[in-house]
Amino acid sequence: MKTIHWFKPLILLILVAYPAMCVVWPMPQMMSTTSTVLTINSKKFTFQSSSKSDILHQAFERYMNISFIPLGKQIQPQLSESFNVTASSGSLTSLKVNVHSSKEELNLDSVENYTLTVTAKGATLDADEVWGALRGRLETFSQLVEPTESGMFQINETKVIDFPRFKHRGMLVDTARHFLDMEVLYEHIDAMAYNKYNVFHWHIVDDESFPYDSKVLPEVTAKGSFNPKTHVYTADDITKIIKYCRYRGLRVIPEFDTPGHTRCWGRSKPNLLTKCYTGFLPNGKTGPINPIFPENYEFMKTLLSEVHKRFTDKYIHLGGDEVLLNCWKSNPDVRNWMVEKGLGNNISLLESYYESRLLGIASNLGYDYIIWQSVVDNNVKVMPSTVVNVYKGGFPAELDRVTKRNFTTILSSCWYLDIYAYGPDWKRYYSCEPFSFNGTQKQYDLIIGGESCIWTEYVDDTNLISRVWPRASGTAERLWSAKNVNSIALATPRIHDFRCKILIRRGIRAEPVTGPGFCEYEFGM
Amino acid sequence: MKTIHWFKPLILLILVAYPAMCVVWPMPQMMSTTSTVLTINSKKFTFQSSSKSDILHQAFERYMNISFIPLGKQIQPQLSESFNVTASSGSLTSLKVNVHSSKEELNLDSVENYTLTVTAKGATLDADEVWGALRGRLETFSQLVEPTESGMFQINETKVIDFPRFKHRGMLVDTARHFLDMEVLYEHIDAMAYNKYNVFHWHIVDDESFPYDSKVLPEVTAKGSFNPKTHVYTADDITKIIKYCRYRGLRVIPEFDTPGHTRCWGRSKPNLLTKCYTGFLPNGKTGPINPIFPENYEFMKTLLSEVHKRFTDKYIHLGGDEVLLNCWKSNPDVRNWMVEKGLGNNISLLESYYESRLLGIASNLGYDYIIWQSVVDNNVKVMPSTVVNVYKGGFPAELDRVTKRNFTTILSSCWYLDIYAYGPDWKRYYSCEPFSFNGTQKQYDLIIGGESCIWTEYVDDTNLISRVWPRASGTAERLWSAKNVNSIALATPRIHDFRCKILIRRGIRAEPVTGPGFCEYEFGM
Repeated sequence: MKTIHWFKPLILLILVAYPAMCVVWPMPQMMSTTSTVLTINSKKFTFQSSSKSDILHQAFERYMNISFIPLGKQIQPQLSESFNVTASSGSLTSLKVNVHSSKEELNLDSVENYTLTVTAKGATLDADEVWGALRGRLETFSQLVEPTESGMFQINETKVIDFPRFKHRGMLVDTARHFLDMEVLYEHIDAMAYNKYNVFHWHIVDDESFPYDSKVLPEVTAKGSFNPKTHVYTADDITKIIKYCRYRGLRVIPEFDTPGHTRCWGRSKPNLLTKCYTGFLPNGKTGPINPIFPENYEFMKTLLSEVHKRFTDKYIHLGGDEVLLNCWKSNPDVRNWMVEKGLGNNISLLESYYESRLLGIASNLGYDYIIWQSVVDNNVKVMPSTVVNVYKGGFPAELDRVTKRNFTTILSSCWYLDIYAYGPDWKRYYSCEPFSFNGTQKQYDLIIGGESCIWTEYVDDTNLISRVWPRASGTAERLWSAKNVNSIALATPRIHDFRCKILIRRGIRAEPVTGPGFCEYEFGM
Repeated sequence: MKTIHWFKPLILLILVAYPAMCVVWPMPQMMSTTSTVLTINSKKFTFQSSSKSDILHQAFERYMNISFIPLGKQIQPQLSESFNVTASSGSLTSLKVNVHSSKEELNLDSVENYTLTVTAKGATLDADEVWGALRGRLETFSQLVEPTESGMFQINETKVIDFPRFKHRGMLVDTARHFLDMEVLYEHIDAMAYNKYNVFHWHIVDDESFPYDSKVLPEVTAKGSFNPKTHVYTADDITKIIKYCRYRGLRVIPEFDTPGHTRCWGRSKPNLLTKCYTGFLPNGKTGPINPIFPENYEFMKTLLSEVHKRFTDKYIHLGGDEVLLNCWKSNPDVRNWMVEKGLGNNISLLESYYESRLLGIASNLGYDYIIWQSVVDNNVKVMPSTVVNVYKGGFPAELDRVTKRNFTTILSSCWYLDIYAYGPDWKRYYSCEPFSFNGTQKQYDLIIGGESCIWTEYVDDTNLISRVWPRASGTAERLWSAKNVNSIALATPRIHDFRCKILIRRGIRAEPVTGPGFCEYEFGM
């Protein structure tokens, strides 16, 4: 009995999709499957494309492994050439990939749409750009393939028409509160790709450490890193991460947060940070970068010029959150300078002054920038192209305000993964809807996506992966799938399956989030 | 300049101990160090004892590895025979161990006291029983040894006189909500030994699964386990765990919790569980073991007889918590039977009836038993030798009540590791003081210890180790060290060091718990 449901309305297609053995996460925009099962002998299966794209062909290699993981451990298939075809409606020997454009720029406007058709007559994947081929053919296709007891694989006849709801689907990773090893970052980036994330927001430095290995400001790294030999990212490391991400369709956006969050930078630069006062005396504490010294803008220019050479994305995140304005206010030199400059005692004007000079430096380097919401909340004048990263509570009202002011925006407020609650707290992330304010279509269009954030006060190599996954998969589906794919009841068995059948089997140490139960093949079994 | 502080009062000794490079966790009862540093060439170092104890000699082998981990990765030393002695006050080539008794029974009365003396003249360890030698010579000694850059090791002159404050220092591990792989259990038991825990409380079965591979009740395993081939502990597995624990000085106490927490047992035994009623009709739910059928006591006798053959400890934990008395009440057959038996409608008498028959079965097998507090809270008559496991909130009042009734007791209430809070929540565990009620010395003496509990609703192989460690080290020090070793401020840098220098370097994936920072050698680096 063969049932076909091509192009039924979305809600029906989702229901139809459930009986299939496969799990696809995040849920495609449109997906239909039939009961026809095709057998795949992984030894004879090929990915085919007329494209010469290195990105595509490297992805072929990766996905030959992860699409065909036999039952049992996470190992590569060792099928013999002779095999018995199990009862099935046909077999599948290749997937043909058509990429219509040879454009391989990876940026906010990269096109990730794809169409995947798997029938007894063959399997094809159409994508406008190579990025859609990565998402579609490779990730979605590989999730559709099921291992069988015979050592063969199978796939249901399937049609997928897919595209992301939001074009910026990022994750902030903080490597300053704890250092993260390259190998752990690679594993994490793999998991991001499996979840169709497309931006690695690298919060590389902060108050606690400066693991960015600067050649132009070596003393800042020497005194600011936990250890300048072992706990830094060299230029070469950064290049490797960017390349690793690019081949998986992820942009890398570095964050150099100023003028706050710079405490350890001051260890090598006595005049970089503002001395905070209690009454008439310095109290021994330091605050934000001191905005009254011209050399501090030179410092930022030197730093950002090097950053610009190492990181290739058009965007940089310039931070701007949690500036201790009271420290600025407490310092008599700062107060005097403000009066001289005609800023009076309006500390917001001082913040504006710092930000406008900083943003000017970044613009001159050719950067577009993202900043935390505080900057525009404090009415600092920024370029119209600025992307505002909303991170505080009460985000619906803030998204409303920011988009009314015509800013492009990304949301992080509800996706802080470091804040951990007992139980299935992935539901919180899953349920957070960016359009939960009463806005116009124009306002909604300005919300280009969002980011999960893993701040690492209590996270390092030991627990990054298990802390983040699959909780961050909740965010991933929210940002990729249609707005109405929002049923916790339907998502619960799917995220369980996605963890067991995709993440765990690919060696990602993802923790259980759906309560008591088991995976057919447990991690490490 | 050589400073000696032998046998000063405890509080001074602790302060003196701090400048030493080493970390010892849990804090010994008395420890003094001098500034004299002795060099150790691990290639020429030997553990010596006239004892023929296999437990001792196997421990020698393990601790040769974990005492001498050179700087860098967690690997065995590869020192060349020729080496240069670094500047030091002498060298140490052996540790002599005197175990005064050849008694090797591992039970509640095992003696763990030891004295460790490391001076330029040599190092000796005195222990009454082999268990003290494990704790003292091997664990404490190995924590005192520091690697150096030259590839050599060093140790300060040190004297330790040590004994546990409580004799029952356990951890409940739940293998029913999620199954845990043997390899993960071994790693976890290693970490327990490093923390001087001495009881592995194996909460092996529960509502959700029955991974105990029974030969006498195979159908219960077949239908009650997640998968009877892959998700069970065979008799052989249990023997291995018991042996693994014994060689590390840990007892294994299994828990078979009844009459509640048995849902999956009922799948193969239709009359085992009570059918719950709503009004006059069964509502499809099942409750506790049905206490009115004689065959259910036969079932328990069959099960416990097998358990008694497989587990060697004198104690078994018989559970008894969270009995759904309302289900019993709702069932008309149960109600009628109660009237027939003269119990009227007093449901506590029915619970008493069940428990007294169950405890009778266990006693007849030769077992002593531990039960959850609910059993005595409900005034069930139990043997005077019963150990009451206090687990609910308001534990000081409960400990007061239970010890006034002359019961021996162990505390778990404040050491639930599954309940997770953002931040340094090890402090909660560390700060929990069992003697926090106004009791008599006799009452305090009845409190023989406590247990950390890792319930596994949201824990499996992926995150057991990082979830538990080093949070459970907080409990470990509370149960081993003196009552006045309770300063969070002093413990904070020590638990950080213990995680980095002991747990991480020995390959235990312990997560960061003290906020931003780093380990000199990170996990996996």
